[in-house]
Amino acid sequence: MSTDRAAGTATGDLAWLGAHAAARLPRTVHLRSSGPLAETVEAEIARLRALADGADGSLHLWDPAAAAQEGSVAGDPVAEVLEQLAGAGEEAFALRADGDRIIVIGTGRGLLYGFYAVVLGQVPASPDRWSRNAPAQPIRMLDHWDNMTVHPVMGQVERGYAGGSLFYEHGELRPDLTRVEHYARLLATIGINRVAINNVNVHAHEATLLTTRLDQVARLAEIFRAQGITVHLAVSFASPILLGGLETSDPLDPGVQRWWRTTAEAVYARIPDFGGFVVKADSEGQPGPFAYGRDHADGANLLARALAPHGGEVFWRAFVYDHHQDWRDRRTDRARAAHDHFAPLDGSFDENVIVQVKHGPMDFQVREPVSPVIGAMPRTRLAVELQVTQEYTGQQKHLCYLAPAWSEILRFPVGGPDSPGSTVAELAAGTAGRPGGVVAVSNVGADEFWTGHPLAQANLFALGRLAWDGQLSAQRILGEWTAATFGPDPLVGEVVHELLAQSWLLYESYTAPLGVGFMVRPGHHYGPDVDGYEYTPWGTYHFADRDGIGVDRTVATGTGFAGLYPEPWASLYESVRTCPDELLLFFHHVPYTHRLHSGKSVIQHIYDSRADGCERVLTLRPRWQQLEGRVPADLHARVTQLLREQERSAQEWRDQLRSYFFRASGIPDENGRPIH
Amino acid sequence: MSTDRAAGTATGDLAWLGAHAAARLPRTVHLRSSGPLAETVEAEIARLRALADGADGSLHLWDPAAAAQEGSVAGDPVAEVLEQLAGAGEEAFALRADGDRIIVIGTGRGLLYGFYAVVLGQVPASPDRWSRNAPAQPIRMLDHWDNMTVHPVMGQVERGYAGGSLFYEHGELRPDLTRVEHYARLLATIGINRVAINNVNVHAHEATLLTTRLDQVARLAEIFRAQGITVHLAVSFASPILLGGLETSDPLDPGVQRWWRTTAEAVYARIPDFGGFVVKADSEGQPGPFAYGRDHADGANLLARALAPHGGEVFWRAFVYDHHQDWRDRRTDRARAAHDHFAPLDGSFDENVIVQVKHGPMDFQVREPVSPVIGAMPRTRLAVELQVTQEYTGQQKHLCYLAPAWSEILRFPVGGPDSPGSTVAELAAGTAGRPGGVVAVSNVGADEFWTGHPLAQANLFALGRLAWDGQLSAQRILGEWTAATFGPDPLVGEVVHELLAQSWLLYESYTAPLGVGFMVRPGHHYGPDVDGYEYTPWGTYHFADRDGIGVDRTVATGTGFAGLYPEPWASLYESVRTCPDELLLFFHHVPYTHRLHSGKSVIQHIYDSRADGCERVLTLRPRWQQLEGRVPADLHARVTQLLREQERSAQEWRDQLRSYFFRASGIPDENGRPIH
Repeated sequence: MSTDRAAGTATGDLAWLGAHAAARLPRTVHLRSSGPLAETVEAEIARLRALADGADGSLHLWDPAAAAQEGSVAGDPVAEVLEQLAGAGEEAFALRADGDRIIVIGTGRGLLYGFYAVVLGQVPASPDRWSRNAPAQPIRMLDHWDNMTVHPVMGQVERGYAGGSLFYEHGELRPDLTRVEHYARLLATIGINRVAINNVNVHAHEATLLTTRLDQVARLAEIFRAQGITVHLAVSFASPILLGGLETSDPLDPGVQRWWRTTAEAVYARIPDFGGFVVKADSEGQPGPFAYGRDHADGANLLARALAPHGGEVFWRAFVYDHHQDWRDRRTDRARAAHDHFAPLDGSFDENVIVQVKHGPMDFQVREPVSPVIGAMPRTRLAVELQVTQEYTGQQKHLCYLAPAWSEILRFPVGGPDSPGSTVAELAAGTAGRPGGVVAVSNVGADEFWTGHPLAQANLFALGRLAWDGQLSAQRILGEWTAATFGPDPLVGEVVHELLAQSWLLYESYTAPLGVGFMVRPGHHYGPDVDGYEYTPWGTYHFADRDGIGVDRTVATGTGFAGLYPEPWASLYESVRTCPDELLLFFHHVPYTHRLHSGKSVIQHIYDSRADGCERVLTLRPRWQQLEGRVPADLHARVTQLLREQERSAQEWRDQLRSYFFRASGIPDENGRPIH
Repeated sequence: MSTDRAAGTATGDLAWLGAHAAARLPRTVHLRSSGPLAETVEAEIARLRALADGADGSLHLWDPAAAAQEGSVAGDPVAEVLEQLAGAGEEAFALRADGDRIIVIGTGRGLLYGFYAVVLGQVPASPDRWSRNAPAQPIRMLDHWDNMTVHPVMGQVERGYAGGSLFYEHGELRPDLTRVEHYARLLATIGINRVAINNVNVHAHEATLLTTRLDQVARLAEIFRAQGITVHLAVSFASPILLGGLETSDPLDPGVQRWWRTTAEAVYARIPDFGGFVVKADSEGQPGPFAYGRDHADGANLLARALAPHGGEVFWRAFVYDHHQDWRDRRTDRARAAHDHFAPLDGSFDENVIVQVKHGPMDFQVREPVSPVIGAMPRTRLAVELQVTQEYTGQQKHLCYLAPAWSEILRFPVGGPDSPGSTVAELAAGTAGRPGGVVAVSNVGADEFWTGHPLAQANLFALGRLAWDGQLSAQRILGEWTAATFGPDPLVGEVVHELLAQSWLLYESYTAPLGVGFMVRPGHHYGPDVDGYEYTPWGTYHFADRDGIGVDRTVATGTGFAGLYPEPWASLYESVRTCPDELLLFFHHVPYTHRLHSGKSVIQHIYDSRADGCERVLTLRPRWQQLEGRVPADLHARVTQLLREQERSAQEWRDQLRSYFFRASGIPDENGRPIH
């Protein structure tokens, strides 16, 4: 830990809740509310006060009763806004700047979120109106793929790129949870209201969190509760066998049902506001209902019925596919799997089941179409799963600000551009009767900068902000994060913007081309290996040969996947003429000489994009050097070191892909850039 | 462990030293010798007696004094044979069948080896003459790549395919070393006279075997000593820093020299017959003299001078190459590296340094030319390194009896077919003044069958036999092993012969073609991945593109490697017309349409050989089924299970390679067999 940080604390780097944020909190704060979350606000005020002096003016935090007492603000009666708030749920708040005072009205979580909005500078520009804030997504959840012990290959956090687990060490909860407290605080500022605290691949040791290690869950629940966050547990579908000593996990077995009921009762006796279970079943080797000839509704409803009496919910992942696929068989298509398994079950899930669907049909690639499951299950509660941890997007070694990608996904109109209410965000949010939301895999670990790459904190921040309001622009969110993290220095803002704003498209430009995906090293998924997954059972193929590349997913001649979409998308993807360039190889197998809408041939696009992308990567580090002395020295050094790795890796991507496709196609680069 | 084994013992499977061997020991044995190794013989007689009744006739074990007392055998005076023995070294023995009695004359190890020769049925057919036996290779050594702790990726034994370490468990020597005692016995029967007991990649924990954990070495030395085997230790070149707290390991630094001298003194005080050190320096990340601008002679001689006063020796590995090679650079050739580094140092090594050279220029591939280092260092003691552990030859899941390959290597006339005394075996053996030998990496682990695949025991057996006598045929050795292991059942002999005799060529036929090597999954090295190492820093490339494949190592247009050989080999390998088919792609880059001497095109060879090989693999299991009930049931089951895996894997090799090269070349299989 460097010594040049303001306010050295046990947490080290404070991310976006340090001195710069503290400086934005008005010097005078009047808190007129009570209850546990009001106490949290109070404590947070004290913590921020210790970091910086605060801004001019005053902040008034009122619960509705206090606001009603006040009667009016700047002459406007508050009755109207109070009425609107009452109908907007307990997470909503209203905010208004009135001269040099800022007023927030809310209850419980609403008040907490309003307070953090002020700290993060989200005060509206127009002083004469109330800004009414309520989250777009009822569910705003982070999944942690943390193990308690260290896996010999995966490390401690599966697909984690930020050191070990923030929660566990040596197989148990860490004795010192100070950093977890700060993490919970960070999550609350961005409106996260749920976390799942362990890996969905539930190993034997972690399975016991449900029973003999329940105290450790309770301890985490206590910390998260203080920030309005509910704790969930990933459980093994085989728990009745693993933990209960039963001989079956069959969802229709009365003994199994009884075991889950009893177990849920014990959990709620200890943690009354426990959120529920997260389950990965019949997926990549995890146990599930298929073993007993039951379907996923049977499986999910089993757990749902055990939780229902206590208000708990089941997050049931739709990531089910054959991971022993035969690469020789070109008719099987992993992209179809979630739809094939789940769409027919629409309407069969209990009301407290949320089917958790990855945003794309494959697995968090840098570019995928939206999953056709979203939109295909109108009678089911859904949560769209995003991945903040950068598994396939540079592993927190490459810059890849994902908010533009998420924005595109959330705004995608599943029912067609002219079909109202059909964006992914709207479908995920669901209805009052069937609320859904957004779940994302966290990118945080025990690393001193939380996320390995300090600039990857922006992804965590953006995830929360977009789940709160999918209409926010990725660039605006980036500005908020930069200011809160690094303060008002305009050069810092400019450089960070330059590094991050286009970094997703930049990463796409030098890695797997045109939506084809993968081409990574098997196992760890980092770095290029064009054929790495080509002859494996994982269903992630590109079918490149000497003539062409891509996966034919058309109805006419391919796997039929394109036909799973509603119109106009089915026809648009079906035709090689209308399919967007960036998804061309996801839907079509084309010759290298095929002309893109851009006018380039596929092969020339592969050559140029990798070379151009790499050239741009080489401009990043010199730019970052300009911030030396303007951001904390240890953070500056870490980013510099990672930019070096990004340069090395981007050149490797460029050279391997250019060589591979030149060797395959024999077509020279018409720009004459060297191919090895 | 199955219950149907004869003589259940703490060691379980007794390999080739069980009841069948015991049955060959004559019922009456007269031992006329004394000393520790005579006591070992005595104990071994008792152990074998407990396993089986023994054969008719008698065995007479005489040391030279006893033989001289006896005076004559069958009327022949023994004086002549005693004189010959006296000049042949302490490992030699004489053996003669005289009616129903067998006579062995020898001292110490010689007598022990003679005794085991009788047990293993190596009694000569001609009864009227003395058979005089002395080892061809003075050094007959096994290296163990065992770690004390379990590596998260490599497991406990690096490149081990037979479970954990036989020696260590939980970071320390196993408390129960019964199986090590039997292992030492097995090694003595095949004439092994040295072992190195830890991985040449010496990690921090294992480094302490040299100092604070020396007692554990002493304990192993005691066990091996009883079988005439000397113990060696792999040490880190950085030991003075790691263990001694010095700031340098510079071989010319007087403090470093002093540290090694003192350390060696302490080792010999504890283990007076300690063999010496094994060192992997400046290789794949291990520390070495290059860091101080010194060469490998400086490094090796540093250790040699510390060991010399005690009679110890240094095994210094020549496996030095740039493992951060740039795949873009086609002029650098890993195959050249050992020659480039070591040949110029010929004559600079101390007399107690043995340079340990891998048999091929790359890394234990199924087919490589002989390393040009062998023959290039006439003034240096050499040991040729072979690999019994099947890293690149099926990992003890595939059948691959390696004796035919080793035979070919040992008989290869480095100086040309007409140059006497220049075979690899002769060059390795060296001269009386500069004795060398054979070192091999063991394939044994904690597995109940010692070698994972029970039939892989034949490789261990053959290694010892060939180091003893390189003129023995691989098939004869196989017969010896089969009879000792499974007894005289002719069907067993026939089937085992059918499974093993051609298994090396069979393995070659369906894996990487025509000497090109690798094409395995990176990291674990099992299973096909044609491009797995193609764009890595490891220097193991095939350069396949749409037109052709292979590495141009000619002097005329390639890396010049072919020119490192003496004539006639240099010219033979240089020309694509004279280069043997099986090494064609090692030395040349050729079009797929290039005609082999076999008359087939390269591409058709790739297609046919993989398909034919795979078909043959599918015949093995039905054949093995015929032995059910004729070999121990647990062993039968294990082999059956592994044959299934071999079938699966061979089909994967066949299909991946056929598909890869069809996609690349676009040339159809003229035999019309399906390509996926």
